[in-house]
Amino acid sequence: MITLLAGGVGAARFLQGLLSVHPPSDVTIISNVGDDADFYGLHVSPDIDAVLYHLSGLADEERGFGLTNDSYNVLDAISRFGYDTWFRLGDADLATCLARTDLLRRGRSLSEATRELADALVVPVHIIPVTNDRLRTKIRTDDGIIDFQEYFVKRRTEGHAWEVIFDGAANAQPAPGVLDAIADSASIILTPSNPLVSIAPILAVPGVRDALASTNATIAAISPIVGGKALKGPADRMLRDQSMPATPTTIGKLYRDFLDVLVIDNVDADQKGDIEALGLEVVVTDTIMSAMDKKAALARTVVEAVSAKP
Amino acid sequence: MITLLAGGVGAARFLQGLLSVHPPSDVTIISNVGDDADFYGLHVSPDIDAVLYHLSGLADEERGFGLTNDSYNVLDAISRFGYDTWFRLGDADLATCLARTDLLRRGRSLSEATRELADALVVPVHIIPVTNDRLRTKIRTDDGIIDFQEYFVKRRTEGHAWEVIFDGAANAQPAPGVLDAIADSASIILTPSNPLVSIAPILAVPGVRDALASTNATIAAISPIVGGKALKGPADRMLRDQSMPATPTTIGKLYRDFLDVLVIDNVDADQKGDIEALGLEVVVTDTIMSAMDKKAALARTVVEAVSAKP
Repeated sequence: MITLLAGGVGAARFLQGLLSVHPPSDVTIISNVGDDADFYGLHVSPDIDAVLYHLSGLADEERGFGLTNDSYNVLDAISRFGYDTWFRLGDADLATCLARTDLLRRGRSLSEATRELADALVVPVHIIPVTNDRLRTKIRTDDGIIDFQEYFVKRRTEGHAWEVIFDGAANAQPAPGVLDAIADSASIILTPSNPLVSIAPILAVPGVRDALASTNATIAAISPIVGGKALKGPADRMLRDQSMPATPTTIGKLYRDFLDVLVIDNVDADQKGDIEALGLEVVVTDTIMSAMDKKAALARTVVEAVSAKP
Repeated sequence: MITLLAGGVGAARFLQGLLSVHPPSDVTIISNVGDDADFYGLHVSPDIDAVLYHLSGLADEERGFGLTNDSYNVLDAISRFGYDTWFRLGDADLATCLARTDLLRRGRSLSEATRELADALVVPVHIIPVTNDRLRTKIRTDDGIIDFQEYFVKRRTEGHAWEVIFDGAANAQPAPGVLDAIADSASIILTPSNPLVSIAPILAVPGVRDALASTNATIAAISPIVGGKALKGPADRMLRDQSMPATPTTIGKLYRDFLDVLVIDNVDADQKGDIEALGLEVVVTDTIMSAMDKKAALARTVVEAVSAKP
């Protein structure tokens, strides 16, 4: 069994590769919910939905969020009533959120609602939000503390991110199945997702980090930083905003208390020694998931790395 | 001041005429909420919205519901998750319901939410739902009691309507302003709406019928039955289902405890005597609102009738 700690698009792309080399029934995804948000009273779960859309073939992979050929007719209409529409929730995307919100209102937990949505979209893997409780990532900026989506979408990550806050994390319980998946998996993979806003909120749920430290599973992470840059999103700048160099070595340091293997890109091969000095195994490979064959090759390499370790 | 008791499309058409001959700031609309429904967790208020859309120029007047050129992308998408989509809520129509539901969830009453939506759509009249409490029309059919929209839309009013039930009416309070509007108006007009499912739910709210009986206002109704047929919808069949002839005289009988004037169509002139025998004044005119000049002419006639009476 393989368990993934997953953010949004980076995770979804890696999963596409993984599922081409590994049976989906063995895969559990523990999904970040820190970037969940409420718009128009709807519960939006961008990371869960990125995985759902990518694995059901609905994703707008080029744009990196939402569904292909989606329209914005609800947003256009609701703007008449004075609502903000900077979060570009397409009509089909909104339908997913409407269904999720309806399920939650009828008493389902977020993990139950996620399972129903995944079943309806015939997504063959088990996706568990890390917690069913309210956990919201917030960013301390020069203008005060703002919601993650306001930082990420409305402000396009402009300005200094002084602090990343996981509001609600201290009182959040891991969702049913999260700690078991970590304890019982043979392999755990941290997808190439933003360490500060995709993986860190997962680790902030009490019990998760301890479970990772004590599991017998082999744990690998794929560095989302390649050649000093984030492949997607603001991870590089956010690391620097926190006074950390944007390097795979930093990624290794962030996870060193539970990590076994760090997978880094060929361009960062010179950091192998530094990372090994942290007590980690290093796999150097091509981590750029530009096409399906590259996604599959990366997945195969990572699966081998986590399987090889005794 | 003129107060209207209003259903959906018939009311909206009459209002278009009324506002062409009368200043909107003097007009209060007490709206039926019995056909309100919940779809996907959204609060749908078809009669309120019919008025909003007709008075803001957004209505699909030909089709008789929703907005012109609306799309159904949310419905198409949400059907993936197993939701029924027989209630054809267009994307822009859904946006209205999403805004209303969001306002309600944030603590607004239905009348407060209605005022905000009307203001945003620059609708110049005062629309008050008859109650802010839950009042839902249900129909007793051969298959048991079903929600009004299931009878009306899903079943296209097929089958015998044995009974019309106003679920929640007994415990409903008139919304703020309803009883005052009835008491303080010089004129009250019952729009040509279905007496059993558009006007009756308004009358079923405790206090409303008594207020109509005791007001000093002159009260007129426009018969929605012309030549034995409903101009729109199932009013004629529903009356017969309740063992009442589908005639203007029946309309007069239903309202005789508070009505002063019944406005009937030229084709029903032969019933004038029967209706006068009920103690009502009768105005015979052209009530078919096929075009704007006809709507205005009818409104002018009705306003004159309610103003003329001492």
